Amino acid sequence: MNASAPTPLTYDQTGVDYDLIDPLKVAAQRAAAATAGHLAGHGFSEVAASRGESAYVVDVGPFYLASIVECLGSKALVADEMQRLTGRSHYDGIAQDTIAMAVNDLITVGATPLVVQAYWAAGGSDWFGDAQRAHALVAGWKRACDACGVSWGGGETPALAGIVESGRIDLAASCTGIVNPKSRLSLGEALSPGDAIVLLASSGIHANGLSLARKLVDRLPNGYLSEVEPGLGYGQALLAPTTLYSPVTEALFKAGVVPHYCANITGHGWRKLLRHPATLEYRIHQLPPVPPVLTFIQQHAALDAAEAYGTLNMGAGFAVFVGAEDAERAVAVARAAGVEAWICGSVAAGPKRLVIEPLGIEYSGDSLQLR
Amino acid sequence: MNASAPTPLTYDQTGVDYDLIDPLKVAAQRAAAATAGHLAGHGFSEVAASRGESAYVVDVGPFYLASIVECLGSKALVADEMQRLTGRSHYDGIAQDTIAMAVNDLITVGATPLVVQAYWAAGGSDWFGDAQRAHALVAGWKRACDACGVSWGGGETPALAGIVESGRIDLAASCTGIVNPKSRLSLGEALSPGDAIVLLASSGIHANGLSLARKLVDRLPNGYLSEVEPGLGYGQALLAPTTLYSPVTEALFKAGVVPHYCANITGHGWRKLLRHPATLEYRIHQLPPVPPVLTFIQQHAALDAAEAYGTLNMGAGFAVFVGAEDAERAVAVARAAGVEAWICGSVAAGPKRLVIEPLGIEYSGDSLQLR
Repeated sequence: MNASAPTPLTYDQTGVDYDLIDPLKVAAQRAAAATAGHLAGHGFSEVAASRGESAYVVDVGPFYLASIVECLGSKALVADEMQRLTGRSHYDGIAQDTIAMAVNDLITVGATPLVVQAYWAAGGSDWFGDAQRAHALVAGWKRACDACGVSWGGGETPALAGIVESGRIDLAASCTGIVNPKSRLSLGEALSPGDAIVLLASSGIHANGLSLARKLVDRLPNGYLSEVEPGLGYGQALLAPTTLYSPVTEALFKAGVVPHYCANITGHGWRKLLRHPATLEYRIHQLPPVPPVLTFIQQHAALDAAEAYGTLNMGAGFAVFVGAEDAERAVAVARAAGVEAWICGSVAAGPKRLVIEPLGIEYSGDSLQLR
Repeated sequence: MNASAPTPLTYDQTGVDYDLIDPLKVAAQRAAAATAGHLAGHGFSEVAASRGESAYVVDVGPFYLASIVECLGSKALVADEMQRLTGRSHYDGIAQDTIAMAVNDLITVGATPLVVQAYWAAGGSDWFGDAQRAHALVAGWKRACDACGVSWGGGETPALAGIVESGRIDLAASCTGIVNPKSRLSLGEALSPGDAIVLLASSGIHANGLSLARKLVDRLPNGYLSEVEPGLGYGQALLAPTTLYSPVTEALFKAGVVPHYCANITGHGWRKLLRHPATLEYRIHQLPPVPPVLTFIQQHAALDAAEAYGTLNMGAGFAVFVGAEDAERAVAVARAAGVEAWICGSVAAGPKRLVIEPLGIEYSGDSLQLR
């Protein structure tokens, strides 16, 4: 551990340059929006409010159809390095992470996930020759489907030498679901001052912030084997599989609690609480406990609170916005479904901003640019 | 051109070793099939016959839901090399290829594609900094969505340094659609002796067989600039975008023609005509014209007819199996939708095999192992 104050390690240093990606994203979003009219030819229509949200929603008559494709990101590189160091494959957890990226986004709109498709693009056919790793991936994928109550429909296992790096795998999942009954749609029309913000516990870093977390390894004398707490190495802690939140959202529906809005807290950390386009103020008055691996990253990367909460999930993996009268029940339902939860804040009239009172920090409405 | 008889270049030499991938595929298919029961918890059920078919189908009550994720494969590497040689980006066509991989598979089950999601995983954010290329990708993606009448729902544009090779992009598409009315389901229950095999023209190599086609470049004195026919270079010919067949399948439905079965002719070439599990004989008595680029590959890779038709589409990109009484109408409808078509063969009682009479070759039922 470095006694002198280290230079902060921020996302700008991790090599992902959003200034290059963002113009393309904007062009793609505009072109995508211009295709919505095709649905009329089939007698259907898009739910326009879902553009820019975590999943795309189409009104197909008796219910809404929701779909998404999501990438794991770079977490598999941590699993590869840990396998090199320990001999054990963590691809069972990596499989859960990949499915979580898709399922946790899909459910934000109120959808029940029904089908997951696997996208496993390896750098060469030899990737699949490591039987321990390949079977960990299969077993973990199935277990995550079981946990979410989805059917694993199939997928693709291409060998892409020359595109995917040798010895690596590019993992993604697509997910299709329905919003049924239609009253479950939670795109935020009902979001109002007075609503409670219920935060659901994360299991660790999940699958966002990994570029930063991997970069940090260079600063740690024992790299991935550095201890986050006694007996828990950094690499192992990073690999805690992402919590699957669909058991909670399904249980909420069965309990009669329909969220007014949901946010999956992934990239941009708690700034994701500002996702909804309305002009509303989000006030946090209680913080969830921070998983040790995130405290460790904050400390060793020398992130101040604004950087940490604006980048990492800091213990809250998913936010459910519910009417104040439903807040305690939502917490009880989540806990009964096996996920810790707390009433951490509330929605208020005011300028669009997120105020984290216990830390004395605030994020303005323009600190999250997703549309 | 080499005057001495060249050594045949077969798929075994291209570096894709299916013996390594196949055990994983089998394990994944078994695990996936074991998750189907979860749908009952939501009041739904899978259409079991869709397992092993080109798209996965779920019965959601008023209609069937179909979904898929598909990878482009290695065709983008040809576009990259051609951009290096000519300065022009072909990513508009590459976008169409990627969508075709998903849409042409989805429609085989009788589904109308509704939503496409984009998966564009680059080797680094700098990939998106080439504005000409990035905008070709966006424009081509939109145009293909327009041609298929689908809504482009959104997608992912991750920068995956360390997983995807620098300067490269891993492209995939997911597609969701519905089979509506349910009588459009074309999983092959109605497939019978006497049915006609209508083949739809391909535009060239499409996006399968590219590993072989790329490998062949080493044998060509002028590489990708070698002429396939006067004025048409090999690289340019390879990059002809894959034909989109959903306008044909939609037009067939509107004309009252419901295919008994469909096969997207991709990897394994015409052996895909053996896809249906039934014990039936498929007899081809007329061959479609072969696109010059495929004749060129067959000749320069020294493939005999059995290898060529068992690997490449050889002019037929999609097969529609219809009742004999619908065959001529199916051809007329396809042509009116802008895709050349021919009645090329028929289904007969007999051992499972494909007989291509004009070439005197046959493929036994076990020459295609997909399940």
